[in-house]
Amino acid sequence: MGHIHGGDIYSRKVTHDFSANINYLGMPDSVKKAAVLAIDDAVHYPDPACRRVISLLAQKEKTDTRSLICGNGAADLLYSLCLAFGCRSAAVLCPSFFEYEQAVTACGGKVKRIFLKEENGFAPDEETLEEIRAFKPQLLFLGNPNNPTGRTLPADWIRRVLQIRSEEDLLTVIDESFAGFMTGSDRNRTLEAVRLTGEYPNLFVLKSFTKLYAIPGIRFGYGICQNKDLLEKMRGRMQPWGVSSVAQAAACACCGETEFAERTAAAVAENRELLKKGLSGLGFHVTEGAAANFLLFSGEEGLEERLLEKGILIRGCGNFPGLSDKWYRVCVRSREENETLLLALRSR
Amino acid sequence: MGHIHGGDIYSRKVTHDFSANINYLGMPDSVKKAAVLAIDDAVHYPDPACRRVISLLAQKEKTDTRSLICGNGAADLLYSLCLAFGCRSAAVLCPSFFEYEQAVTACGGKVKRIFLKEENGFAPDEETLEEIRAFKPQLLFLGNPNNPTGRTLPADWIRRVLQIRSEEDLLTVIDESFAGFMTGSDRNRTLEAVRLTGEYPNLFVLKSFTKLYAIPGIRFGYGICQNKDLLEKMRGRMQPWGVSSVAQAAACACCGETEFAERTAAAVAENRELLKKGLSGLGFHVTEGAAANFLLFSGEEGLEERLLEKGILIRGCGNFPGLSDKWYRVCVRSREENETLLLALRSR
Repeated sequence: MGHIHGGDIYSRKVTHDFSANINYLGMPDSVKKAAVLAIDDAVHYPDPACRRVISLLAQKEKTDTRSLICGNGAADLLYSLCLAFGCRSAAVLCPSFFEYEQAVTACGGKVKRIFLKEENGFAPDEETLEEIRAFKPQLLFLGNPNNPTGRTLPADWIRRVLQIRSEEDLLTVIDESFAGFMTGSDRNRTLEAVRLTGEYPNLFVLKSFTKLYAIPGIRFGYGICQNKDLLEKMRGRMQPWGVSSVAQAAACACCGETEFAERTAAAVAENRELLKKGLSGLGFHVTEGAAANFLLFSGEEGLEERLLEKGILIRGCGNFPGLSDKWYRVCVRSREENETLLLALRSR
Repeated sequence: MGHIHGGDIYSRKVTHDFSANINYLGMPDSVKKAAVLAIDDAVHYPDPACRRVISLLAQKEKTDTRSLICGNGAADLLYSLCLAFGCRSAAVLCPSFFEYEQAVTACGGKVKRIFLKEENGFAPDEETLEEIRAFKPQLLFLGNPNNPTGRTLPADWIRRVLQIRSEEDLLTVIDESFAGFMTGSDRNRTLEAVRLTGEYPNLFVLKSFTKLYAIPGIRFGYGICQNKDLLEKMRGRMQPWGVSSVAQAAACACCGETEFAERTAAAVAENRELLKKGLSGLGFHVTEGAAANFLLFSGEEGLEERLLEKGILIRGCGNFPGLSDKWYRVCVRSREENETLLLALRSR
């Protein structure tokens, strides 16, 4: 089966799933309604050009329709990106989302792992920048916020990376799948990345509705990039009907849920602080700087198995390159659910 | 936008769509209900292993679960197949579904077109076999029934192809996306292909629920093959959550709709004969041997545009390699709709 991700609730008895990083508030009603209505229309092929949703995304992201591309989840775009741009050499900062590496390898490329330091709280530093400069990977993947650390990348650090890489024909992917959960000054930074695509044609900003709008079972992701040739090549490497009618309809509804998104980010931030305090209080070491709807912490080995006996699924991170078996990731859920988790951890 | 397929009703004013080969009886109620219910569960990631649907498919296809692989529509599997098996050299019989060629090219391969002869009614013959034998393509795509001709491949011809190719490490794909529409003795042949996978580990039978159960907007396809290494490689080249929860639930319901499938095949066969007579009566040349829910016919150029003025969309086949602008494909729909089409053609 290859790499195991979070969220596999099908092979185990789970009453509380903290392993998948999905908005605990669930799917907005408007999104559910749109998806249900779309099933009536599913006797027709989906619009291969995703015209309606792309026009709404252009407004939301303050960009033009020709800079947008949609996929069957963000993962779908990762694969077509690797095929279209080429990925002879690629680099990931570790620990990060394993699917970057998986997509590169599937498309015949090689991945260099640039390890972030535990003593830095997994924040990138001058040395990281130096490694990127020296290795010159054709493709570089940056998560912002990064999964599983939850950390955001400093704005000036991103600028310097883009500057270095703009001198050659190298592509940088900033994965903002979890950016919708950011609050405060971080929150404005996501529009900043989109704005940077105007300055750097080889910046590809990857986005997902899966997590923020809780539609992982429906699948919708999109990308923003000013390199029109690249987008055209990507389209040539994807099947014409990859984004289902249901996904397109749901995504259109998501575009209208601005208030829900803001409410989510605020609630998650509040619950995250409480959960963080709770975990620290139990003696776990929680990684600093978390800006998404999950927390990375370390403790004794074997926690995953022990919690599973109580029907609680957390994400053991031992299979993330760069992390050992003492690391765990948990989704920030409702205050009550987080209490249940803390209680179970207390009596471990 | 690359190649244009049928079914794009989004950029045009269409009241009758004869361009997409979808079951005119629509989606069975049980499938619609299952899809709607699945939306409630779509806050969870889909089962990456598609366990429930694979166990039902194994029963339906009289094969074992380990010989099955699911995709986001059959097209998704075409791409991962090309990536996993390799497609340095591939061959298609022309005219056929353009997506075979598209998938091979996207994955960096080259396609040899083996042209079927118009004077043979686009049936393969000894010469076709000879070309396959001589060229030895790493990958060979056969549609059965073939799109857009609607023809089935003779059972003994298929056996001879498989025999030739089994001597070397060459993969043959039999695309049975339209096999569910076959009636009479043809109908038993689809289980025959699955049985042949037992004899020929490098036979990959591709199937789709999209057409028969009218779920093109939901997307579900699957493949049957005894080459477990190949399936494992394909899984490694696909994103883990490619098949949405909605698609998995809908596909499970499809597996229970045996009576609906039989009723469809009978109704389509009846309407196909009437439509064929009607088209012939209007002076069009209709290709013999149609066994699917569409007909290929030739007439004067410019028909597509003239019908579109009346809100009727048919599939001009000029962009199928091997066909000229005088060829058209129409879906077999209800008797009344087919009459509407014939009436519009009469007053063309």
